[in-house]
Amino acid sequence: MIKSDYKMAKEKVFALKKLSLRAQHLDLMAGGTIVLLNAQQANQNDIYTGYRIILRSGRRSITAMVDLTNDMVQPGAIGLFHEAWSELKPEKGGMIEVELTSRPESIEYIKNKLDGKELDPHQIQTIIGEVMQNRLSEGEMSAYMTSCYIRGMSDNEVVGLTNAIVHTGDRFDLKRSPVLDKHCIGGVAGNRTTMVIVPIMAAAGCYMPKTSSRAITSAAGTADTMETLCQVTLPIDEMVAQVRKIGACIVWGGAINLASADDKLIKIRNPLSLDPKGVLLASILAKKKSVGAQYCIIDIPVGRGVKIQDVHEARNLAKDFINIGKRLGIQIEALITNGENPIGRGIGPALECRDVLAVLEGSGPVDLRDKSCQMAGTLMELAGKCKKGEGHAIAQRMIDSKKALAKFKQIVDAQGGDSRKLNAHSVPIGSHRFTLKAERPGRISHLDSKMLSRLARAAGAPSDRGAGVYLHCNHGDVVRPGDPLLDLYSESESKLDLAIKVLKTYEAVELEKVVLDSLRE
Amino acid sequence: MIKSDYKMAKEKVFALKKLSLRAQHLDLMAGGTIVLLNAQQANQNDIYTGYRIILRSGRRSITAMVDLTNDMVQPGAIGLFHEAWSELKPEKGGMIEVELTSRPESIEYIKNKLDGKELDPHQIQTIIGEVMQNRLSEGEMSAYMTSCYIRGMSDNEVVGLTNAIVHTGDRFDLKRSPVLDKHCIGGVAGNRTTMVIVPIMAAAGCYMPKTSSRAITSAAGTADTMETLCQVTLPIDEMVAQVRKIGACIVWGGAINLASADDKLIKIRNPLSLDPKGVLLASILAKKKSVGAQYCIIDIPVGRGVKIQDVHEARNLAKDFINIGKRLGIQIEALITNGENPIGRGIGPALECRDVLAVLEGSGPVDLRDKSCQMAGTLMELAGKCKKGEGHAIAQRMIDSKKALAKFKQIVDAQGGDSRKLNAHSVPIGSHRFTLKAERPGRISHLDSKMLSRLARAAGAPSDRGAGVYLHCNHGDVVRPGDPLLDLYSESESKLDLAIKVLKTYEAVELEKVVLDSLRE
Repeated sequence: MIKSDYKMAKEKVFALKKLSLRAQHLDLMAGGTIVLLNAQQANQNDIYTGYRIILRSGRRSITAMVDLTNDMVQPGAIGLFHEAWSELKPEKGGMIEVELTSRPESIEYIKNKLDGKELDPHQIQTIIGEVMQNRLSEGEMSAYMTSCYIRGMSDNEVVGLTNAIVHTGDRFDLKRSPVLDKHCIGGVAGNRTTMVIVPIMAAAGCYMPKTSSRAITSAAGTADTMETLCQVTLPIDEMVAQVRKIGACIVWGGAINLASADDKLIKIRNPLSLDPKGVLLASILAKKKSVGAQYCIIDIPVGRGVKIQDVHEARNLAKDFINIGKRLGIQIEALITNGENPIGRGIGPALECRDVLAVLEGSGPVDLRDKSCQMAGTLMELAGKCKKGEGHAIAQRMIDSKKALAKFKQIVDAQGGDSRKLNAHSVPIGSHRFTLKAERPGRISHLDSKMLSRLARAAGAPSDRGAGVYLHCNHGDVVRPGDPLLDLYSESESKLDLAIKVLKTYEAVELEKVVLDSLRE
Repeated sequence: MIKSDYKMAKEKVFALKKLSLRAQHLDLMAGGTIVLLNAQQANQNDIYTGYRIILRSGRRSITAMVDLTNDMVQPGAIGLFHEAWSELKPEKGGMIEVELTSRPESIEYIKNKLDGKELDPHQIQTIIGEVMQNRLSEGEMSAYMTSCYIRGMSDNEVVGLTNAIVHTGDRFDLKRSPVLDKHCIGGVAGNRTTMVIVPIMAAAGCYMPKTSSRAITSAAGTADTMETLCQVTLPIDEMVAQVRKIGACIVWGGAINLASADDKLIKIRNPLSLDPKGVLLASILAKKKSVGAQYCIIDIPVGRGVKIQDVHEARNLAKDFINIGKRLGIQIEALITNGENPIGRGIGPALECRDVLAVLEGSGPVDLRDKSCQMAGTLMELAGKCKKGEGHAIAQRMIDSKKALAKFKQIVDAQGGDSRKLNAHSVPIGSHRFTLKAERPGRISHLDSKMLSRLARAAGAPSDRGAGVYLHCNHGDVVRPGDPLLDLYSESESKLDLAIKVLKTYEAVELEKVVLDSLRE
């Protein structure tokens, strides 16, 4: 009894601390909802750096993080950076009511996680909710991520986190069936299977409301590649209408508000490249759940230079996807694929787009065609559109009959493009070119995805859509002196020069050394 | 062979990214060395939020963290917030050379710690060094703290961290012996033993260069209390000279640059109240090592409302202090003390100062006198100044002979105070007073340190030196209706009113309820 009184009393004492401060506009981005208080006044009121306060002005109220200053803000005033100012919209010089908030509820849960306790769905929802309200500092969010990494996450926690992330964004229900999705764990240059699979599946009568990402460190994301042909930033209602009508879309996920907590979580995971498996699973599956996917295929490339480098790890990840998917009502199949080498010939938006179109036209790089058909076939079997073992052939037929190409053109047109004269050669690429030729005979031992992406980026990709790398050789090819190995494409002479410099610094196509070394043995 | 070439080549590719940008002054504190780049230009150069860049202007260079803006800074420019501007001191509109730094070396070590590997002294030194250079983000530092918390730290790691922290600040060597220090884990209101122990030890011929802290959440730190009598912000060379001459000083540690990494580490630990034991040990012992302490006594209070609530935990902590101390060349004794109740009568700078003076004058609160003499005695035995078991009596004699009082006055005078008319009643206290009286008979069951500190702070402490609480009763006392329980002192009517409100909200002196409850049983 006494204990609970004690706790109540503590909260009451806190509630006494209310201040009325004059609004001062600090016209600068702070990278978060941050306000500046005069250090002396803050300390007198038991307010310290990193504390959260509630600001009230008129009917609006926001929660902000406190930073202190000795001179920028005088006692009696409160400085609002751009973000806080535009959220609260106070009058300049008007009074803002300031109140110390209680400590975020999450802190206790994060400490529990640190101590190895399993969190329940409500606790996880609270953490994600407070992340979205900017109530947690970078350090606190990092502590949560770190403890998820070290302590691991139970299946219950992953499901809880997925649902919590889903709840932070929009969701939609197509009221159609079957709704499909796909995902690739990433890291393989040129791996543009999405743009082949989506039209195949839509041509086969399925629904695929595909949201894709832009490149972050790679030379092209699916959204960048698709954008060489049409718009990819559709409002959510237009996207839904299009999928209902023609079965598919390929849009940029960043333009719509699906599973929006995910972006914040990625920002926390990035600096240390922390990828707690449970958070990775939740982050991917929340996007699938938000679009109402019933069936989903996951591409897990394994090899040097990609995220997953060990087959055993890939198999465990595949199992986890399938298990957690089941708990979320999504039937998942995961394919472990070879991530050692790039897929297709082109690396960079326009060059990759050419590969995709060539495949849909019935020619193009065999590896891109094969991988896409394998994935589409598996998805077809998963969705019950055909018998086990028949999917691959049906996917091939969708390409050979040009039905997939027709569906792709329909998607391009629906998204504001013009498919009338579209073909693999009509997509414009950079007019400045440099060809790297073999200087001695040898066998191509390895094509490094990361370094090829870096080359393409030096040439201007992804923002220069026509920039990139075109591969003339494949892993295992034997080349003679003078044989072309790759072309660099760029939209300007100076960027081409930069890319050539990068090329000369690093041999993206490991060749002579390895061959000579192996001859010596 | 190929691997190392590969790594070198990667670094070379990075090194190609050099930009020359126009300096733009953003006259605002950013809370760190942060610069703003135009988002578009940054992305084209593979620079993202949170990346570190090296800035060069003339002969100066600094490392800063990147933040991005769409409109505040145009392409071709770089915005420097106050901290970065004043470190680099560029000309307004002058050109700054910008280069992407390699990823901080620490990141790999922090990941190793996350994965449960023991870090060696070089790795820990690198982490602390990069913390001091602002090369690590809040999230990265938090990940290190979190993993130290979850994984624990080996003795080797604690020693390594202590030495790394020592190296970040100034150190001094008194060239005298014995050099003593003391530390209290904290949390007990009124626990001003330092101001009694230091003059006792100096009067006994020892050297005690004592650095103390100001209050953060308590009603008074030793530095605040001492400051009611004299200056506490001494330059390091004056401090050293004073200790050589009169044997002791009592100054504010924040004014000198000892073990300065510690402040940053505290800032990281605070939000989650993370106190990885190893970091706590290193943080405390680094300060002791910086002043050249050979012998040290640690006060570990145990009880409700203080940091350590369990005797078993306290014993382990005591053992750790002794072990790590040995490795660092410091002989340590740790006393586990009763932290259930406040020490002394006063809570607040001037009121606590009165208690200290009263004790040195030969009267004053018995608990403060006893605890101080016990600690001083143990320290005396530890330093070999007397035989085992004799220390306590010698400490008492130093008080009773007024030698400790004379030494204390010497310290006050050396630090710019005036001890001529100084006595326990001469220290000014707040002129506004309110006395809380018992309403019914009962026995005092508990005096809560945290709530008493909060009361004193509401009354104006520690910034109003004369504000605070004076206790008329002790734990266990039987009181009758009308008996005074405590006085509230304040320097203004309005603050007294606020403190009375807080008092009425919470019964800092648990009384009736407990007594009535126990009668009922």
